[in-house]
Amino acid sequence: MTELAAVKAALKTQAVETPSWAYGNSGTRFKVFAQQGVPRTPYEKLDDAAQVHAFTGVAPTVALHIPWDKVDGSDGYAELAKHAEERGVKLGAINSNTFQDDDYRLGSICHPDAAVRRKAVDHLLECVDIMDATGSADLKLWFADGTNYPGQDDIRARQDRLAEGLAEVYERLGDGQRMLLEYKFFEPAFYTTDVPDWGTAYAHCLKLGEKAQVVVDTGHHAPGTNIEFIVATLLREGKLGGFDFNSRFYADDDLMVGAADPFQLFRIMYEVVRGGGFTPEVAFMLDQCHNIEAKIPAIIRSVMNVQEATAKALLVDRVALAEAQAAGDVLGANAVVMDAYNTDVRPLLREVREEMGLDADPIAAYARSGWAEKIVAERVGGQQAGWGA
Amino acid sequence: MTELAAVKAALKTQAVETPSWAYGNSGTRFKVFAQQGVPRTPYEKLDDAAQVHAFTGVAPTVALHIPWDKVDGSDGYAELAKHAEERGVKLGAINSNTFQDDDYRLGSICHPDAAVRRKAVDHLLECVDIMDATGSADLKLWFADGTNYPGQDDIRARQDRLAEGLAEVYERLGDGQRMLLEYKFFEPAFYTTDVPDWGTAYAHCLKLGEKAQVVVDTGHHAPGTNIEFIVATLLREGKLGGFDFNSRFYADDDLMVGAADPFQLFRIMYEVVRGGGFTPEVAFMLDQCHNIEAKIPAIIRSVMNVQEATAKALLVDRVALAEAQAAGDVLGANAVVMDAYNTDVRPLLREVREEMGLDADPIAAYARSGWAEKIVAERVGGQQAGWGA
Amino acid sequence: MTELAAVKAALKTQAVETPSWAYGNSGTRFKVFAQQGVPRTPYEKLDDAAQVHAFTGVAPTVALHIPWDKVDGSDGYAELAKHAEERGVKLGAINSNTFQDDDYRLGSICHPDAAVRRKAVDHLLECVDIMDATGSADLKLWFADGTNYPGQDDIRARQDRLAEGLAEVYERLGDGQRMLLEYKFFEPAFYTTDVPDWGTAYAHCLKLGEKAQVVVDTGHHAPGTNIEFIVATLLREGKLGGFDFNSRFYADDDLMVGAADPFQLFRIMYEVVRGGGFTPEVAFMLDQCHNIEAKIPAIIRSVMNVQEATAKALLVDRVALAEAQAAGDVLGANAVVMDAYNTDVRPLLREVREEMGLDADPIAAYARSGWAEKIVAERVGGQQAGWGA
Amino acid sequence: MTELAAVKAALKTQAVETPSWAYGNSGTRFKVFAQQGVPRTPYEKLDDAAQVHAFTGVAPTVALHIPWDKVDGSDGYAELAKHAEERGVKLGAINSNTFQDDDYRLGSICHPDAAVRRKAVDHLLECVDIMDATGSADLKLWFADGTNYPGQDDIRARQDRLAEGLAEVYERLGDGQRMLLEYKFFEPAFYTTDVPDWGTAYAHCLKLGEKAQVVVDTGHHAPGTNIEFIVATLLREGKLGGFDFNSRFYADDDLMVGAADPFQLFRIMYEVVRGGGFTPEVAFMLDQCHNIEAKIPAIIRSVMNVQEATAKALLVDRVALAEAQAAGDVLGANAVVMDAYNTDVRPLLREVREEMGLDADPIAAYARSGWAEKIVAERVGGQQAGWGA
Repeated sequence: MTELAAVKAALKTQAVETPSWAYGNSGTRFKVFAQQGVPRTPYEKLDDAAQVHAFTGVAPTVALHIPWDKVDGSDGYAELAKHAEERGVKLGAINSNTFQDDDYRLGSICHPDAAVRRKAVDHLLECVDIMDATGSADLKLWFADGTNYPGQDDIRARQDRLAEGLAEVYERLGDGQRMLLEYKFFEPAFYTTDVPDWGTAYAHCLKLGEKAQVVVDTGHHAPGTNIEFIVATLLREGKLGGFDFNSRFYADDDLMVGAADPFQLFRIMYEVVRGGGFTPEVAFMLDQCHNIEAKIPAIIRSVMNVQEATAKALLVDRVALAEAQAAGDVLGANAVVMDAYNTDVRPLLREVREEMGLDADPIAAYARSGWAEKIVAERVGGQQAGWGA
Repeated sequence: MTELAAVKAALKTQAVETPSWAYGNSGTRFKVFAQQGVPRTPYEKLDDAAQVHAFTGVAPTVALHIPWDKVDGSDGYAELAKHAEERGVKLGAINSNTFQDDDYRLGSICHPDAAVRRKAVDHLLECVDIMDATGSADLKLWFADGTNYPGQDDIRARQDRLAEGLAEVYERLGDGQRMLLEYKFFEPAFYTTDVPDWGTAYAHCLKLGEKAQVVVDTGHHAPGTNIEFIVATLLREGKLGGFDFNSRFYADDDLMVGAADPFQLFRIMYEVVRGGGFTPEVAFMLDQCHNIEAKIPAIIRSVMNVQEATAKALLVDRVALAEAQAAGDVLGANAVVMDAYNTDVRPLLREVREEMGLDADPIAAYARSGWAEKIVAERVGGQQAGWGA
Repeated sequence: MTELAAVKAALKTQAVETPSWAYGNSGTRFKVFAQQGVPRTPYEKLDDAAQVHAFTGVAPTVALHIPWDKVDGSDGYAELAKHAEERGVKLGAINSNTFQDDDYRLGSICHPDAAVRRKAVDHLLECVDIMDATGSADLKLWFADGTNYPGQDDIRARQDRLAEGLAEVYERLGDGQRMLLEYKFFEPAFYTTDVPDWGTAYAHCLKLGEKAQVVVDTGHHAPGTNIEFIVATLLREGKLGGFDFNSRFYADDDLMVGAADPFQLFRIMYEVVRGGGFTPEVAFMLDQCHNIEAKIPAIIRSVMNVQEATAKALLVDRVALAEAQAAGDVLGANAVVMDAYNTDVRPLLREVREEMGLDADPIAAYARSGWAEKIVAERVGGQQAGWGA
Repeated sequence: MTELAAVKAALKTQAVETPSWAYGNSGTRFKVFAQQGVPRTPYEKLDDAAQVHAFTGVAPTVALHIPWDKVDGSDGYAELAKHAEERGVKLGAINSNTFQDDDYRLGSICHPDAAVRRKAVDHLLECVDIMDATGSADLKLWFADGTNYPGQDDIRARQDRLAEGLAEVYERLGDGQRMLLEYKFFEPAFYTTDVPDWGTAYAHCLKLGEKAQVVVDTGHHAPGTNIEFIVATLLREGKLGGFDFNSRFYADDDLMVGAADPFQLFRIMYEVVRGGGFTPEVAFMLDQCHNIEAKIPAIIRSVMNVQEATAKALLVDRVALAEAQAAGDVLGANAVVMDAYNTDVRPLLREVREEMGLDADPIAAYARSGWAEKIVAERVGGQQAGWGA
């Protein structure tokens, strides 16, 4: 197999999980602009996600969010899974929500009141139950916990509570199930956040055990943070569980991945490839908000952006790079990396898609498909999905 | 009059405008935690604001937000003003809202579609009509306008539209009316913001004329920005119209002013005093979100924080400071400033309050007053006020 | 002429000025790593700069720094200019230095002591004398002035001194001479900087007059600042005098332009093109520090990076973009811009170079030329040039 | 013992280590402004440090930097230690330097070339030898290692080299000796830094063992980073070895501790006290650059700033705080903390000093002492100490 053939083969194995909530409405604290045709049910979200997979070929799974995607009945999730499979996709990670109940004003798993912590942990345990029902392998945990004012709560006591709650949930995990712990620099808490950086997530995961892994959300860092360094470090430590992809110019802007800094995305993907992270053990997930742009094409574009960054990362001439690095040739080594980055990989990806039996241009093909018009016409009435149950 | 007497006299003249919307519910994009006893109407907001003034003595006016505080009837605003005055406060600045209609998804006054721009300008003109009715002197303009993605719209064309819209509104201003233009680093737009910094606001105000002034919201700057420098510069240029006070550790966190960096607030107040800005021409306004803490006491605390910073600023020994500065005595000059900052001015402010016939401890006095219990008991049913009309 | 021909024609007219000091040694406060073959005199710096132009064809002028490039004798600068022209380049902007004398510990043009201010202004006037001698059109002013501690000096008084000093220098400018005023967020001052942002530079230039223009150094902004917005705004105001190009991940890192965020460079160049700034009135200058990499090839690479970003900016389909923007098509408009950015313009630039009679690959051609070996062999002894006279 | 007596007793036990290099010249990459009277030898640095201790009573030890403080002879360090003790101080931590040799252009312990790594590790081992000779307990390691350009070197391979080098040095540590590993966000490396954050330092220390501890330099974080959270976390993990105190508005400005954000310093000291870190196991060290201000008084002021923050931290009413926190009383809990912060502790510290037999006002007492004039008069000729051997 030639090198290019190997790159193409690798690209065909790529899997980017799309999140059910990205198909629903989202916005800022100032306004949620509703869009026409937005899904009203988890079933309709899966229908949309199936479109993304149908046109890209590399978005085979869909993350659920509980309770936003909660379904009733003893075999509700089995039916949901079946619905997904009938449309060509599968259910992916289960995402918990411990930030939208009134009880969570001062936190959830870190709350000063044991009763609230109990409620939060029970929700997480319920999420594992749902994983059993859906066959999901990953429990993705993001905590909005933190404080807004100095002194509001005890920083260290909150860590103790966090550790205790995570331990109970970890014990509940079955074989083949993982806990993915996400960190976030700030928001919605504005003074302390209880899992604010990779170091904190790593320290907790280390104590929990092998099934606990860190998730890197690319929008959750302080200004200037070198994310690819964190990726390289977590892979070296065997603790990188996956990514929540998006992009940002400022804070957690949740723009389309690759939209704000495509060079950074490429550098991240290079560390993934170089560190042996281009495997099913590292989950590639999107976590974005399409506040003003059309959602399905935005998600297709996002998947393609990940593909393009991956293709460039795979094209880096690692032999030449290693030689230049060993020789201390700063400009030469940089040039090897830039040569891959500056390559226009879109023709390559068109070929890949055609070899996969897909249209070379997913955006155009989706536009021609009539799906957008169809959902606008059909999804009338009901309650559009958003950040609510 | 001794120097201390002069400081006390100055402190008694201070006026901090509180915003009607701070008495209502607010939150983040993740969740708005409703609080008990929150006002349901503009009238009830004024009732709460009157409490703040009653206990602090230095919060005599209340900013309105249109349409959140819109009232019906030909003399609706006159009645509202009368209600305020009966409770001991007055109506203050009128704040416009061009970010919550569905039409504003891609902007308002900078929108690519002339019809949307027309609608936005009409709203601003209506706000001036309301100023006429309320007797408000200041029209405070904050635009959420901007873009989320490179290329989404033309940066420069949006500036042209902005200039055109502002000019029309400026022409409508009557005698004694001003336009206060606010800038903001980012949010809710995540790539460009159409008035992102003081330079942009300044350039527009300069062209508009004397009635156009810049508002400094203390939470609307890039990390590390030296806000007191901007204050000094705008005062030197005669273009500082006022402040929206709040504090932040990260982005536009909207915490209580002085809560995150009290030293910065002191430095800002020092430049106000030094630059001749401690006059009615520079409006001191709060613009905060009490997402998790009780609202009225938080606003009382905020007013007190502004008072304390002002007291410290007034206590700076400017003669000694000028001498040390002229001598190039870096440590000596810094020590003069720090000496004022390190002074505990709370006893002084207790005296000031007692001389004004107030309780020395506004927080305790408010707590004893029973107002908090009363509004929880009485404000049952109806729609609590929040960021909506 | 076809569109591509027009793009190529435009690229052939590009002129990127390289700075004499970039050929000398530089470093951080921790260490300056000397390199072999570094010039010892302004003449040798010009020799190196001529190499950059010889291989790129678009670096025809060289900025001087006074006193680092000071030459003696009544016709010293005329000889220097002649030396340059014999090697195929010309002298460019004159850069002043008011930060390295012991007198400047507390500032130069803003210093509290009038005698120090006099000295600083005299230096600036001397720089205009040198412009007369060299035929340089631009006086580039960067001030290290500022303070390290709150209270150290009076912020506003320093602005008054700045205005006064600039006015005197402005008056001295002859026909066809400009003053380019640079701003910088921070460093070497760590509390206030006297020209910290574009707004301050703009306000001063506005008062000075038409010959005073703002320079945008791409590394001199707060984290997250949208530089292309500033570029668009300054062009709209007729106040963009030029660029100091470099790139940064953190502070003023002074890395090779395009090395840290090539997408940002492209967006900046797009605003230049869109705003009518791709003319001789807007100076494109490099201002970089090649602390650890070989200097001449780094500068060649930097010039090429500017070319590539310019080529992409010129390739943006502005008709399609305008249509998508007018239609409010967020994704479509973004796609037009990204299409240009994702294009591999290196083949196009190779053609451009060949049509200009140059080697298609400047880096390889320089490496083959033997210049690097020659200067290492010949430049033995003497005092290597660095950040000193 | 009353509570206040306990606070005073604690304050009397405080020990702040001052760094030998802070008594010498320092500056920015633009200029080092030399000051009169600056020490020429390690002996003279100790003389100055002894003055700081003589007037503050809480600066009993002095950190050395190798090779800047290298002394010759078989018992050179014993003599240096004796010199210190004769003046009333002791030698403290040994600081290594692997950033100023020409060999270190591309790094030291992480360098791609094994020979350079060997040299760096040998230097660190030599530092432990010096610790044996001086009786120092702590080896403080800061590495300037990193890269400036993407691709320049392999991020992960550098971590492997770092781990290997640290392990060899760790093995060499004797009983009672510790390795304190410092992290830094950036500078002098501008793309990657090999120990950029507490997580990386923590992960390495964890593997090395109990004698390896993390040092928090208060200036070495990304904008907005919550340092007290890191302090609380490291104390909880038993991995906080100490502090390098300084303050900053922007990057690693190295201003006097407490000068930029005294409230942050207080919050940090509160977490130290709350987390049981106010013990000899957590080293309080200064690491500052007095570029423009007089050095000895700046260091005295810095020590006093640490004392004031500590006093306020000790004054927090922890019982009331715990009650408010348990009750979820956001404003009440914050008020408890602010009450301590707003207290003017200078009178208390004057009492503490008088009870220690010291002048109540160290700055004034030093000024009266004539030391400043004496060193200016006596230290004539020779080579002033700076950042060089």
